[in-house]
Amino acid sequence: MLSNNVFCVIGGDLRQLYCAQAIANDGYTVCASCFEECSVKFSFEEPDVRKAIRKSDTIILPLPVTKDGITLNTPFGKGSIILDDTFARVCSGKKVFCGMKERLLSTSPLWNTSLVFDYSKREEFAVMNAVPTSEGAIECAMREFAGTINGSRCLVAGYGRIGRVLSSMLKGIGADVSVSARKKSDMAFIRAAGMTPLNIEELSCLPQSLAQFDLIFNTVPFMIFDSHTLARIVPASANTIIIDLASLPGGVDFEACERLGIHAMRALSLPGRVAPKTAGEIIKNAVYNITEEDLR
Amino acid sequence: MLSNNVFCVIGGDLRQLYCAQAIANDGYTVCASCFEECSVKFSFEEPDVRKAIRKSDTIILPLPVTKDGITLNTPFGKGSIILDDTFARVCSGKKVFCGMKERLLSTSPLWNTSLVFDYSKREEFAVMNAVPTSEGAIECAMREFAGTINGSRCLVAGYGRIGRVLSSMLKGIGADVSVSARKKSDMAFIRAAGMTPLNIEELSCLPQSLAQFDLIFNTVPFMIFDSHTLARIVPASANTIIIDLASLPGGVDFEACERLGIHAMRALSLPGRVAPKTAGEIIKNAVYNITEEDLR
Amino acid sequence: MLSNNVFCVIGGDLRQLYCAQAIANDGYTVCASCFEECSVKFSFEEPDVRKAIRKSDTIILPLPVTKDGITLNTPFGKGSIILDDTFARVCSGKKVFCGMKERLLSTSPLWNTSLVFDYSKREEFAVMNAVPTSEGAIECAMREFAGTINGSRCLVAGYGRIGRVLSSMLKGIGADVSVSARKKSDMAFIRAAGMTPLNIEELSCLPQSLAQFDLIFNTVPFMIFDSHTLARIVPASANTIIIDLASLPGGVDFEACERLGIHAMRALSLPGRVAPKTAGEIIKNAVYNITEEDLR
Amino acid sequence: MLSNNVFCVIGGDLRQLYCAQAIANDGYTVCASCFEECSVKFSFEEPDVRKAIRKSDTIILPLPVTKDGITLNTPFGKGSIILDDTFARVCSGKKVFCGMKERLLSTSPLWNTSLVFDYSKREEFAVMNAVPTSEGAIECAMREFAGTINGSRCLVAGYGRIGRVLSSMLKGIGADVSVSARKKSDMAFIRAAGMTPLNIEELSCLPQSLAQFDLIFNTVPFMIFDSHTLARIVPASANTIIIDLASLPGGVDFEACERLGIHAMRALSLPGRVAPKTAGEIIKNAVYNITEEDLR
Repeated sequence: MLSNNVFCVIGGDLRQLYCAQAIANDGYTVCASCFEECSVKFSFEEPDVRKAIRKSDTIILPLPVTKDGITLNTPFGKGSIILDDTFARVCSGKKVFCGMKERLLSTSPLWNTSLVFDYSKREEFAVMNAVPTSEGAIECAMREFAGTINGSRCLVAGYGRIGRVLSSMLKGIGADVSVSARKKSDMAFIRAAGMTPLNIEELSCLPQSLAQFDLIFNTVPFMIFDSHTLARIVPASANTIIIDLASLPGGVDFEACERLGIHAMRALSLPGRVAPKTAGEIIKNAVYNITEEDLR
Repeated sequence: MLSNNVFCVIGGDLRQLYCAQAIANDGYTVCASCFEECSVKFSFEEPDVRKAIRKSDTIILPLPVTKDGITLNTPFGKGSIILDDTFARVCSGKKVFCGMKERLLSTSPLWNTSLVFDYSKREEFAVMNAVPTSEGAIECAMREFAGTINGSRCLVAGYGRIGRVLSSMLKGIGADVSVSARKKSDMAFIRAAGMTPLNIEELSCLPQSLAQFDLIFNTVPFMIFDSHTLARIVPASANTIIIDLASLPGGVDFEACERLGIHAMRALSLPGRVAPKTAGEIIKNAVYNITEEDLR
Repeated sequence: MLSNNVFCVIGGDLRQLYCAQAIANDGYTVCASCFEECSVKFSFEEPDVRKAIRKSDTIILPLPVTKDGITLNTPFGKGSIILDDTFARVCSGKKVFCGMKERLLSTSPLWNTSLVFDYSKREEFAVMNAVPTSEGAIECAMREFAGTINGSRCLVAGYGRIGRVLSSMLKGIGADVSVSARKKSDMAFIRAAGMTPLNIEELSCLPQSLAQFDLIFNTVPFMIFDSHTLARIVPASANTIIIDLASLPGGVDFEACERLGIHAMRALSLPGRVAPKTAGEIIKNAVYNITEEDLR
Repeated sequence: MLSNNVFCVIGGDLRQLYCAQAIANDGYTVCASCFEECSVKFSFEEPDVRKAIRKSDTIILPLPVTKDGITLNTPFGKGSIILDDTFARVCSGKKVFCGMKERLLSTSPLWNTSLVFDYSKREEFAVMNAVPTSEGAIECAMREFAGTINGSRCLVAGYGRIGRVLSSMLKGIGADVSVSARKKSDMAFIRAAGMTPLNIEELSCLPQSLAQFDLIFNTVPFMIFDSHTLARIVPASANTIIIDLASLPGGVDFEACERLGIHAMRALSLPGRVAPKTAGEIIKNAVYNITEEDLR
């Protein structure tokens, strides 16, 4: 257990509230601010932000910490919190955790008087979030696809963190899973996992049309499914559904999809939306891990 | 391939339309009636029911064939089709397939001049429908649960068709799965599958409270989760979600759940709702299987 | 815990010794006789059989209880124990557990003064033994096959207890698994499990030759792989390996295999040979289950 | 298909013969030398090594190419082939593939007139070999362990290539799998795969003793299981079996094991021993991959 820690969680969506809850469950003192408009209520809310910060030594800010570069990201807050020298000064000398740290640092030079950490840059944070992202993708596929995932033919484009977790879950439900990758060693891992590896470069000139797939999940943040590649889907039954999980600008040409009559959709920010409790625990873990490493 | 078959599909929901589609994809002649109000359109619609029946030798009616005992079950039809001697006479000499055959037979004595089969009574029909039912249950759990299925503690009550398929899928997604059963041999199968078997009779007096489970799926059509058993959930965090998949009257005391503040819900008729395409193919397969066996 | 039980285990192979060990680990008093020649030594051996029986109230005899119908099955014993009225009299009034009870009963009319139970007839005993049998089959395949199970094409003939457990393990290692079955509902379960169902009746006239399979595991105790069916393997590379797991006389025509140059072998009595510890625990569990049910 | 390729395979064990066989199956011309003493016979053997090399443009040498630094590694050869300028001159201008290339290059300066490639250094070669290595480890565990893998508690030390494949296979058979790793992101992957992650640094001071594990597989080439760590196994039942898969000098103190009475064994060079056919195909694939990349 981390000694002498009093936490406060300021702003953000449901994830941050669950993060605070998880910290409280671990036996720490915690308070949360800027959740006035949230329908879910917790006992540890502290309406006064300054007071919340003052009595804490560890401040947890949201991901992203700010959307407009000026105010704190507080979707459930009644007013808005300006990120300026004053705010930085209140946090001075404390450990401050946030997502997309560089945005916070550019709001005031005084942040150099605090220890500012970015939990969103941690490798294990990304891996852990691959779990709710994959489940969100599956939930989305279940909702949109008129068949069952079991017995369906799925293509997962990319074998990074999300590709690894998602393909394994799809197989676990009983889908027939192909995974496209670039590295030969990844293709060996894919085959060892009982799935069919496809060379990502040959995807646009596959002997078998992409239309053989019921569901295509893209995880690669490059324009892989451009109009040229998409055109390979159309000749056939055109029932293929494409779900793009890659961060913006994504890897699917949505205009071409519409023109070609292909059913495609974006699924972004899934962890916070489909599993805020898990997403909050993931933030908590990253904060703990950073704290432990920092202590050594 | 079955020889000399012309099919017509009359009434029912989206499943029946997908059933007709799947038959057409197999190369048979097929027409479909009573889908005037359906937003999904297929080329093989035949507005005139009598004409549809006359030109076919195999008639596929919905599941259930009738809800009120008087008219055909046609949720997408413009008018209603009375099930009387006249209707039975038009079908005379044809092979007629439906779900819940006894309801059809009681509408006219003339049905004894046709070959009436009940596809819903087939064992493989029930097993195949366990797949969309299980996926529907998982989709429901994903929607309601604030955490991820992966890493969650799930209890599946019952190890019949749905219990077997559902528990395996939950494990495939990475849940920690316990299954309650009554037969010692089922408990051995559960353990062999890497899951924890629980004796269903001890469920209400388990040393560890039921509250340890994040998700409870009931598949047993008896009152298993009565107020006595449910009371074991409450002392703890009360975040457990109960999803009752058993046919009405089900196996969960919903009034007690409300009184105790337990989040519980029914999930019924999942195949037609979550995967009408697969559900339609399952009806098609049952019809084919019956036809093949009948030919021998 | 069962009250007032003192156990003695008399005769049998390593399994029975492990059974005694497992009973001792549960805290019961136990002794074991007729293991003089066994290289594995346990502290609870009692050389005097009569003494062992007298001080116990529960006697556990081997599976099968006798091979020749005259003496107890004691492969590790120095002498032999005659099964006659004298032996039955010593056991009189005790609970006696054995495998293949009818063989014991025919050795003396006095057995009707004891409570004789057959643990080998229990359904859960058979299911639990499917686990070591399946692992033994896989170990055998690993030893004989020059390739890896992962990526190999396997056929499991039969979807009973062993077929269910074995096919699931093969899939878990990454094999491409087909399972033949007769019941349409079993074929639906096979498909739901992400494996390919084959109709057992069409096996001998499959469009694709049996030679496509690297490994064939037979679990069906009928002559399925007769010379007619086996001939379908030969035209191709003839590298297929057949492992017959079915009880004698088995389901493979071994003479035809030799004539046709097909590599085939029997693998029998696997639990006791490959996993005596687990096999012993399975006997213990069956004995406990019978005792509990008998007490009610 | 690679154009204008004539292959010859010289020396090595059964793997190399299967490699030649696999190349022949792909439709290429191939010959093999130095297998006079091998009991398995293939049609494409060419007794005269020089002739074999002259008529080929691609030479495949074994892994390792030499054991003594002087002669080619030819365990099945009648005589021995000296690796000197003469041998290098015969190969001049050809594509030469081998394992542990640096050993070959040091035998003659003339090798710089050939294109010498090392297939054993390829990342995908290592990943693909993780499959036969893992199966060999499981076969070894099945042989040594008196229980079943299903239901056993296994620890896999290390989550590199072998750790990833092996842990997944063990889970697929139904074991309860823990994996130790160092990176927090690997621990997240392990948890997502439904296994228990353990911090490798805490292994020697785990609150629960190592003796809880039935089977420990080490894949890490550092002294992890030193006498200090091993001592944690002894207090308990001491039935734990340790299988060391790490390359020499390995990661287990075998002397300490013997002193402490722990059953431990090395399992090395598994691919060639347990699955020479697969191991040969893996060499073939690496040779093809290098050739394709070299052509671009």
